[in-house]
Amino acid sequence: MKKTVLEELEKIVGKENLSAKIADLYVYGFDASIHHKNADAVVRPANTQQVSEIVKLANRTRTPVIPRGAGTAMCGHTVPLKGGIVLDLTRMNKIKEVRVEDLYCVVEPGVIYDKLNAVLGKKGFWFPTTPGSGEACTIGGMVVTNASGMRAIKYGATRDYVLGLEVVMPTGEIIHTGTRTLKNSSGYQIDRLMVGSEGTLGVVTEITLKLAFKPKASAMTLAAFNSLFDAGKCVSNIIARPLMPSAIELMDSVCIKAVNKCMNVGLPDVAAICMIEVDGHPVAVEEELKIVEEIAKQSGATFTEASRDKKRIDYWTYARKAIMPSLSRYGEKFVSVALADDMSVPISKVPDAVVAFQKIAEENGVVIGTYGHSADGNLHTKMLVEPNSQDSWRRGERAVGQIFDKVLELGGTVTGEHGVSITKAPYMKKERADSLETMRRIKKALDPKNIMNPGKIFDWEGSIIQYLRYPAFLEQDPGDAPQPSECEPKAYSR
Amino acid sequence: MKKTVLEELEKIVGKENLSAKIADLYVYGFDASIHHKNADAVVRPANTQQVSEIVKLANRTRTPVIPRGAGTAMCGHTVPLKGGIVLDLTRMNKIKEVRVEDLYCVVEPGVIYDKLNAVLGKKGFWFPTTPGSGEACTIGGMVVTNASGMRAIKYGATRDYVLGLEVVMPTGEIIHTGTRTLKNSSGYQIDRLMVGSEGTLGVVTEITLKLAFKPKASAMTLAAFNSLFDAGKCVSNIIARPLMPSAIELMDSVCIKAVNKCMNVGLPDVAAICMIEVDGHPVAVEEELKIVEEIAKQSGATFTEASRDKKRIDYWTYARKAIMPSLSRYGEKFVSVALADDMSVPISKVPDAVVAFQKIAEENGVVIGTYGHSADGNLHTKMLVEPNSQDSWRRGERAVGQIFDKVLELGGTVTGEHGVSITKAPYMKKERADSLETMRRIKKALDPKNIMNPGKIFDWEGSIIQYLRYPAFLEQDPGDAPQPSECEPKAYSR
Repeated sequence: MKKTVLEELEKIVGKENLSAKIADLYVYGFDASIHHKNADAVVRPANTQQVSEIVKLANRTRTPVIPRGAGTAMCGHTVPLKGGIVLDLTRMNKIKEVRVEDLYCVVEPGVIYDKLNAVLGKKGFWFPTTPGSGEACTIGGMVVTNASGMRAIKYGATRDYVLGLEVVMPTGEIIHTGTRTLKNSSGYQIDRLMVGSEGTLGVVTEITLKLAFKPKASAMTLAAFNSLFDAGKCVSNIIARPLMPSAIELMDSVCIKAVNKCMNVGLPDVAAICMIEVDGHPVAVEEELKIVEEIAKQSGATFTEASRDKKRIDYWTYARKAIMPSLSRYGEKFVSVALADDMSVPISKVPDAVVAFQKIAEENGVVIGTYGHSADGNLHTKMLVEPNSQDSWRRGERAVGQIFDKVLELGGTVTGEHGVSITKAPYMKKERADSLETMRRIKKALDPKNIMNPGKIFDWEGSIIQYLRYPAFLEQDPGDAPQPSECEPKAYSR
Repeated sequence: MKKTVLEELEKIVGKENLSAKIADLYVYGFDASIHHKNADAVVRPANTQQVSEIVKLANRTRTPVIPRGAGTAMCGHTVPLKGGIVLDLTRMNKIKEVRVEDLYCVVEPGVIYDKLNAVLGKKGFWFPTTPGSGEACTIGGMVVTNASGMRAIKYGATRDYVLGLEVVMPTGEIIHTGTRTLKNSSGYQIDRLMVGSEGTLGVVTEITLKLAFKPKASAMTLAAFNSLFDAGKCVSNIIARPLMPSAIELMDSVCIKAVNKCMNVGLPDVAAICMIEVDGHPVAVEEELKIVEEIAKQSGATFTEASRDKKRIDYWTYARKAIMPSLSRYGEKFVSVALADDMSVPISKVPDAVVAFQKIAEENGVVIGTYGHSADGNLHTKMLVEPNSQDSWRRGERAVGQIFDKVLELGGTVTGEHGVSITKAPYMKKERADSLETMRRIKKALDPKNIMNPGKIFDWEGSIIQYLRYPAFLEQDPGDAPQPSECEPKAYSR
């Protein structure tokens, strides 16, 4: 990066909020995906005006800009593939307004999901999408990936809560789209286009979110199955009753074993479990929980006295979040990685999907743990790979292709809530073959110089196991890790 | 229109589904708005392939294409301002799939809202947005205006139910966007951009809608107020409790008087009424109705024994739909027209808004009836004008400008559910000043020849009382009504 660009950046954000030190560039080259690439500069703007000036500078100098929240993205969203400026938005973390009587709140993009809900919860409200990374992820990141989580079946995804956005466009213009009213039909819904655009169409600098009422009561029960297929079938049997659960979390035996081994939580050692939650009026919750257990039994489930034990359920829910790290300790030479990790299928296809994934895993000699928000058909697979084995990665990649082919055959999508970026790009292109050109036209119209998060989504070419964060391919790629001497402690304080 | 274009159209849809007869062109020049302009041709395609061929032809010959459903649009959406081809989509009226276990259905754009709900209702589901024109309006029209209605407070607008779309783009390409899963993050959410695009970005030819569960019970109560402000205040008091009603329909004294006069339904002759509905589990409904009445009383409401009387409530609900025609009989020389008819404000601003509208009406010497879905801040005003008096129209237009200035000052939007098209264009441009350029860039990228429903939204220039359907301006505009001799009966059968 040219010295003049760095000097201009420093003028905009101040010396303490700019870094081009190799240690920072390395660290900011990661997110929660398998990918890595060093940035050229990291800036931490304080407000919309600074973001606008940075983007204007980037536009003038054709420098890539990569917006970044907490870096919890699973597919490489914040990896600066083409170098450029990583725009760390975590300083913009103010909850600017909470208006319960108007059912909206206004937040900056760096606000953390759980922190927002702590504030809303005191007033009887919440933003209910419940992403797995809620303790860390930012609202801005959720908006640009259309994130959600276990409660999307009943409460929808982030797109369903975005009432309005302030966006710095790729030209540096600041626009306001959407409203602070619960609905609007006033011109193109640019806000809804920005949701899920993964930082390729602009930088979201303020979000107006619809508030939902917290349910008065909720309860969960744990159904154990000796057949993975039956567990999947149970999900669609509940929906078709019709009965609306607030969540059904499925875990297969690979995940159960991993969590039990790592966390010693005593989950039933069966083929699959479903943790089924209902919420609403206390009377309705009690009634529906009974119906749920009845349907689950008819679908082949067994229950024990512990199934409804509140303390135990809380512990299991906690364990549910530990699946990914637990899988990394499944076998010593393996790490669990986000590959084919977020497909969604029509609810009735969940049983076919989970069984097919296990078959594909076996055929390719890889270990796959399947779990996920099965109530809305959104499944997560985590794959165990040997990070230093090219063969292991290749087998993984082959399995990914087969998994996504199956998902598309079942009428599903390659990503329900994590987004595309790098790791799902080739498969998204299959899924969206006939609308890629429309996406490209919109991108070109709004970002003609292609400065916003370039090289991602429809722009990605080739294999998904490029730009790996793991040293498997060191022979081809000397890596860009800094030497210890280059790593000064505390380049700047957080 | 060139003869060759008509001949090509005939080849695509067949003789019986094409008309260029003056009577048809005249009839298809209307919708439910104040505007009118003759079309050059009317076609009634049977399927997506035909739509694609028509649009390709239009693109090649730079002929405007105006998609049309039931013609219930209030702002001129289907009026062929620049002439061209009106694309009547009502033949495409198949419900193609209803998959309750997967919570979606697939419909063609010409399916009528109430007909779809009749089918879904048998299975315990519904599409709950509840537009006032539900008996007639089509799902396609609802999608492109992001329509909703009285239950949007609890159930959201059409945008919240669109899972996927098939769209014929302005080039004639057929694309598929969105999914048949409950959520997706797979590339740009083109479907959400198409929602509310008012036929300017393509023709929606198939819609995948999310299904909602029908509530087990619902109940309504009628609160009568001696102050319009208090009625507005009651709305936000209920929401802030927090309590989620499924609807709160407000009517001011002008509307009450008109409906009583015209329909003789015996609504309380007060300053304002709120018809408040709650739904859900029967126990919750009973509890919440009590709380609602308590809050309403504290806000100044009175209730009578009839307030909860089911039969009477049904009748009143029916009367509620008769406001617009009833207003037309308010005074003999007046007609009620859709002017400033669909603003939405933050819920807590409803009292300020409704009082301000009455003041503006008085100051401009016009009569305005205010009613609407006050629970979500969406208000409808209908204005009484003397159709043959230019002065009356001018006063109406002046009042509209003042009303929308007030709405924007209160943090609202000029349209909550009807859309922009012609009648709200100048005011939408004020509201969206900083994002108009973004809209234009998207439009130009997707429809470079500007053939799709041209002259509307950001493209509209000048006063909203141009292209009037009423004869007030006959002196300037000789009109385009056919001579009786030109009106052959039954140009084609419906």
